[in-house]
Amino acid sequence: MALIVQKFGGTSVGTVERIQAVADKVKGFREQGHDIVVVVSAMSGETNRLIGLANEIQARPTPREMDVLVSTGEQVTIALLSMALNERGCPARSYTGGQVRIRTDSTHTKARIKKIDEEHMRSDLAEGRVVVVAGFQGMDEAGNITTLGRGGSDTTAVALAAALKADECQIYTDVDGVYTTDPRVVDNARRLPRITFEEMLEMASLGSKVLQIRSVEFAGKYNVPLRVLHSFQEGPGTLITFEEDNEMEDPLISGIAFNRDEAKLTVKGVPDIPGVASKILGPISRANIEVDMIIQNVSEDKTTDFTFTVHRNDFDHSLEVLEATAKELGATQVVGDNKIAKVSIVGVGMRSHAGVASAMFDALAREGINIQVISTSEIKVSVVIAEKYLELAVRALHSAFELDKITGEPE
Amino acid sequence: MALIVQKFGGTSVGTVERIQAVADKVKGFREQGHDIVVVVSAMSGETNRLIGLANEIQARPTPREMDVLVSTGEQVTIALLSMALNERGCPARSYTGGQVRIRTDSTHTKARIKKIDEEHMRSDLAEGRVVVVAGFQGMDEAGNITTLGRGGSDTTAVALAAALKADECQIYTDVDGVYTTDPRVVDNARRLPRITFEEMLEMASLGSKVLQIRSVEFAGKYNVPLRVLHSFQEGPGTLITFEEDNEMEDPLISGIAFNRDEAKLTVKGVPDIPGVASKILGPISRANIEVDMIIQNVSEDKTTDFTFTVHRNDFDHSLEVLEATAKELGATQVVGDNKIAKVSIVGVGMRSHAGVASAMFDALAREGINIQVISTSEIKVSVVIAEKYLELAVRALHSAFELDKITGEPE
Repeated sequence: MALIVQKFGGTSVGTVERIQAVADKVKGFREQGHDIVVVVSAMSGETNRLIGLANEIQARPTPREMDVLVSTGEQVTIALLSMALNERGCPARSYTGGQVRIRTDSTHTKARIKKIDEEHMRSDLAEGRVVVVAGFQGMDEAGNITTLGRGGSDTTAVALAAALKADECQIYTDVDGVYTTDPRVVDNARRLPRITFEEMLEMASLGSKVLQIRSVEFAGKYNVPLRVLHSFQEGPGTLITFEEDNEMEDPLISGIAFNRDEAKLTVKGVPDIPGVASKILGPISRANIEVDMIIQNVSEDKTTDFTFTVHRNDFDHSLEVLEATAKELGATQVVGDNKIAKVSIVGVGMRSHAGVASAMFDALAREGINIQVISTSEIKVSVVIAEKYLELAVRALHSAFELDKITGEPE
Repeated sequence: MALIVQKFGGTSVGTVERIQAVADKVKGFREQGHDIVVVVSAMSGETNRLIGLANEIQARPTPREMDVLVSTGEQVTIALLSMALNERGCPARSYTGGQVRIRTDSTHTKARIKKIDEEHMRSDLAEGRVVVVAGFQGMDEAGNITTLGRGGSDTTAVALAAALKADECQIYTDVDGVYTTDPRVVDNARRLPRITFEEMLEMASLGSKVLQIRSVEFAGKYNVPLRVLHSFQEGPGTLITFEEDNEMEDPLISGIAFNRDEAKLTVKGVPDIPGVASKILGPISRANIEVDMIIQNVSEDKTTDFTFTVHRNDFDHSLEVLEATAKELGATQVVGDNKIAKVSIVGVGMRSHAGVASAMFDALAREGINIQVISTSEIKVSVVIAEKYLELAVRALHSAFELDKITGEPE
């Protein structure tokens, strides 16, 4: 007898048949006596279809109207899923983001949730109904429809779970949990029975696309227990835990994340004086280019080399911007490389264990892989290497840290 | 400088190209200095697509969820049209039924409008924006999404025009006005420059499908001047006037309506005693069968014949119900005919002119057409004839009442 918020993404509700399968699944939970709030995305393909219509009309569609348009995708799904539940004798009622009063700010197409009024949901649950809520959307103070941005349905689910103080927020996806790394790259990648929020954040931002990073932050902030499961396969999935709850010894490394979408830029021979970093990154930021890693080494002489990485799509634009900046600063040279990849090892365990970084560098050296850039945080070590070595590096690290030996189920 | 409510139906907004053509048209009106509120339907085919999805899940979809589902159709159109207007430098803002506070009762799938709060629209208009409103939908007191039933976008337009005290409500369709009869049956059918509300009501209920009958009633009740026009052809269309405004002499007959969808049932030899009509029609009504014409002639002896018409789809069901009733009443016989058609002449002018009915009967007699049933009201005369004579009858009447000679433009 728990209160569970369940979120099913676009693929899980992509056809009428799948919506019916989700209804069967939800009904099963109801029959076990649980109270269920279901959050759904648009049927897969629908959001893109709608965006396509908009783009036929406006190259840069009016954000307010874009939200009115794409929010219909989830509205279709909530109605169909509620029908499927009612048809199964499992009373259900659908709500749009606005109807269930998911109040957001007014930043159309990427609004942030400010508060949720859970009264409607509570009274439906009390009357034995399943509450079906449209993910990804809300309403601002003035009554305008807003959306949370792509993948925002996860955030909706976590926010509802937080508002309702749910026992668990279950995110159903097309994978059966969070893996030690991408199984397409490493055959014996293992499902993690549990992972901490911090690790999950690092994994997500580094390219493991299982969960929206915002939803993980949200879950951490409001202590919402989050579980990733497969929509149509049985299994316990991966539980995302608060480190504080965790009395077991942490494994050294929980996973290996990687990202092919980066490019590296270096300004050489920059005068090593205060304020130079902001002089280099200021114009980049004003050009709306997002920067990932930033590395500046201690200087020899009176100059230094300044390196950062950007999304590969922004590579050419960044080079242009940098050339101008370099001239102003009297830097020697601008060099760049867009054939790179970033590989990171992530694990809360490394905080208390020395030598994790050097074990990583050793493993790469054994394969003859040159490390171009290193960056570290409390619970991760990232390196930039030539893209061609990516798979080799991930496999070597997976094996070196014995990730293929992880087993067990979440508590 | 007028305030105009314009309604574009599903065919008029059926593709991105058509939505753009509608935007061009609306922009033209803005440039003439008019304030414009646009009401749109779902893109043609969309509502049926959504209903199809629902029917895959539930044979009789939950009405509340059906409204959540189908109301997305118009929501897509308002967003796209607003984008198209913005793209043309014509500021626009979209509103769902709920957002513009079209408050309805809670009769899902066929709700009735109770009131409209026009403040949002007024302030947008004052700021120079075109207001784009989703037709066909509203919201009940509890915040549930409702729909007005098929064709309800006309009703939305008229209701908005009434609330805003608009100078005119223009209904854009795929015909360029209201015709003296169906041009597919009579080659030289003419567009009526104007028609009274009462005539329009009779024409609509008798099968001329240009406007939703509820919207015409609504327009009459709130004195909203209504005009039917073609979406993509220039022309003054047909103005639907209040008879009171009309100082010209009315034409005798404005149009000829007809209906092939009826079937006729007669109970013969019914005892002619008080209450017999309700004894016959009570069971029909309880079987949810709608009755159109009802005719009972003066009796000879102590029995009478009782005739009524129903929709052709209800013919078999009606016969069944009647057989049982006839037995109870001790009636002689039940006979029926589903190969009939109803033809009506409509015109406010006939109120003050004797002889219209007999002119009608003469015209039919000249063609050898037997009249099975006659029914009259203040402004119409309807006859039931064998279906095979329908086209012949309509042409003969069109010519007899000189409807091919109607010309002129609305004032």
